[in-house]
Amino acid sequence: MAPVKLGLVGIGKIARDQHLPSLSRSADFDLVAAASRNAGVEGVASFASTGEMLDAMPEIEAVSLCMPPQARHRVAAEALARGRHVMLEKPPGATLSEVEHLAGLAASNGVSLFATWHSRHAPGVEPARDWLAGKRIRKMTVTWKEDVRHWHPGQDWIFEAGGLGVFDPGINALSIVTKILPFPIWLTDASLTFPENRQAPIAADLVFAGPEDVSVEATFDFRQIGPQTWDIIVETDQGVLKLSMGGAVLRIDGEEQAMPPEAEYDGLYARFAALIAAGGSEVDLAPLRHVADAFLLGRRQVTEPFFFDPPAGA
Amino acid sequence: MAPVKLGLVGIGKIARDQHLPSLSRSADFDLVAAASRNAGVEGVASFASTGEMLDAMPEIEAVSLCMPPQARHRVAAEALARGRHVMLEKPPGATLSEVEHLAGLAASNGVSLFATWHSRHAPGVEPARDWLAGKRIRKMTVTWKEDVRHWHPGQDWIFEAGGLGVFDPGINALSIVTKILPFPIWLTDASLTFPENRQAPIAADLVFAGPEDVSVEATFDFRQIGPQTWDIIVETDQGVLKLSMGGAVLRIDGEEQAMPPEAEYDGLYARFAALIAAGGSEVDLAPLRHVADAFLLGRRQVTEPFFFDPPAGA
Repeated sequence: MAPVKLGLVGIGKIARDQHLPSLSRSADFDLVAAASRNAGVEGVASFASTGEMLDAMPEIEAVSLCMPPQARHRVAAEALARGRHVMLEKPPGATLSEVEHLAGLAASNGVSLFATWHSRHAPGVEPARDWLAGKRIRKMTVTWKEDVRHWHPGQDWIFEAGGLGVFDPGINALSIVTKILPFPIWLTDASLTFPENRQAPIAADLVFAGPEDVSVEATFDFRQIGPQTWDIIVETDQGVLKLSMGGAVLRIDGEEQAMPPEAEYDGLYARFAALIAAGGSEVDLAPLRHVADAFLLGRRQVTEPFFFDPPAGA
Repeated sequence: MAPVKLGLVGIGKIARDQHLPSLSRSADFDLVAAASRNAGVEGVASFASTGEMLDAMPEIEAVSLCMPPQARHRVAAEALARGRHVMLEKPPGATLSEVEHLAGLAASNGVSLFATWHSRHAPGVEPARDWLAGKRIRKMTVTWKEDVRHWHPGQDWIFEAGGLGVFDPGINALSIVTKILPFPIWLTDASLTFPENRQAPIAADLVFAGPEDVSVEATFDFRQIGPQTWDIIVETDQGVLKLSMGGAVLRIDGEEQAMPPEAEYDGLYARFAALIAAGGSEVDLAPLRHVADAFLLGRRQVTEPFFFDPPAGA
């Protein structure tokens, strides 16, 4: 098949760090245009908006959206209504309902919608799912602690209402949890910590229940200095599984398993191409639903203000 | 058909105000037992827990759950797993995921689950839906303002995490909105006002978008003294529809339409009986999903503390 002509929208950190390198390696896609308010991509036609891009280049068959979630629905709806396949960065939207609307639009326009969860394509995730299948799971412990100043420097949108705060990385953990567990879970207790000057939490503690008294506990923190932690530990009747480095490293009873190199975004684009070829969509809202549940059910506590750069004089 | 033998669980205000009178009128159900921590029902066998009730009376075919949402999932899951049909008061749960789990349990156990929205059975709702069908809707304005001290005297659970606060009545409005609109909507802006001593909001302002530039605005307030307001106004290309009194009164271009008397809970039990007879379930999560979206997307502001009784000395 000829490569799918693709336009990339929202040229920021994640587009440059991940999407552009993966697209440059992909035989499935041909990056022909970019749309972004503030930046272009060298060597491809660049536009200030998605509308202008699709007007000027009707040959574009698919768009991939990398801007923050608060701005994504309008652009995704426009592209779907104009008959283009759409791939969404995570989280797929600022609300569950707007993503439900996009799924309906994709179906009624006969195009593919792919709501991506890049962490599900980490090397250890499929092997972890396979290993857990059929075992009795007793307890799962999720620890996701990272330094927001390092990973999201100056990205104030992440602490705005709808920006998810620490759930922006935490939803990656939840996307792995919901992928590797063979049964559903539901939140029973949550505590969210908000900086007094911000609208999204900087830390969260979650407790989920599941069938047969399984317990799943998750701790997310955006204030981790020094070593960063992205671990999922699963205790079963046949040993202990540990995914670390966000799913890149898998240990069974302490023994590291051989893994292929990290290639999450290559995996996403391969899956997007497969969905387009098959005429299907993939929109799994479970990770975002658990986050919405945490905001709905969670107790709120307030902590000291957060600044990306220390205030003058500090 | 013989009446379905039913156990009522959670004997509080809503059970006494609505469920018991409706059950006493229903030919579809025979109330044979009650389970509640603190209270019984005169003339029927009363138990301290659902488990004890089902152990003692295996002939019970269905249970109806009236306790606050934070406690409902465990009891509903137990009843479904033991092969009983289950009817849930609104909201159907403290999280979306736990209700998804119940829906799965009902399906796998071959019993009916009915997540009720009593306001959808208000007299004006079906006529409003019929009148709106096929008209071009321009704007919808929802105003839901009531006195929490009057309607929920001393019910502190409503302001606890997961109690929903002003969304406890507001979700009634959303259940009507999502029933009468012929298209989906999605939240685009929300502001939630929390008393500084409470974990759930006492007021909320919501803005939704929909297809074709329709706008839906909702204002919920739990601090309304004097006249109470439960209004939905819909401006269309062919006139203005107004539902008031929570759906009991319907006006078209100012002219009041003849309506049958209010019989919301009679309608719920009739629907539950029909679902059981047909072997089906009805679990529409849209109202709760919009509330979760509001917690997820909403800006938070803090207001003065709220007390059901004025503090001593005030």
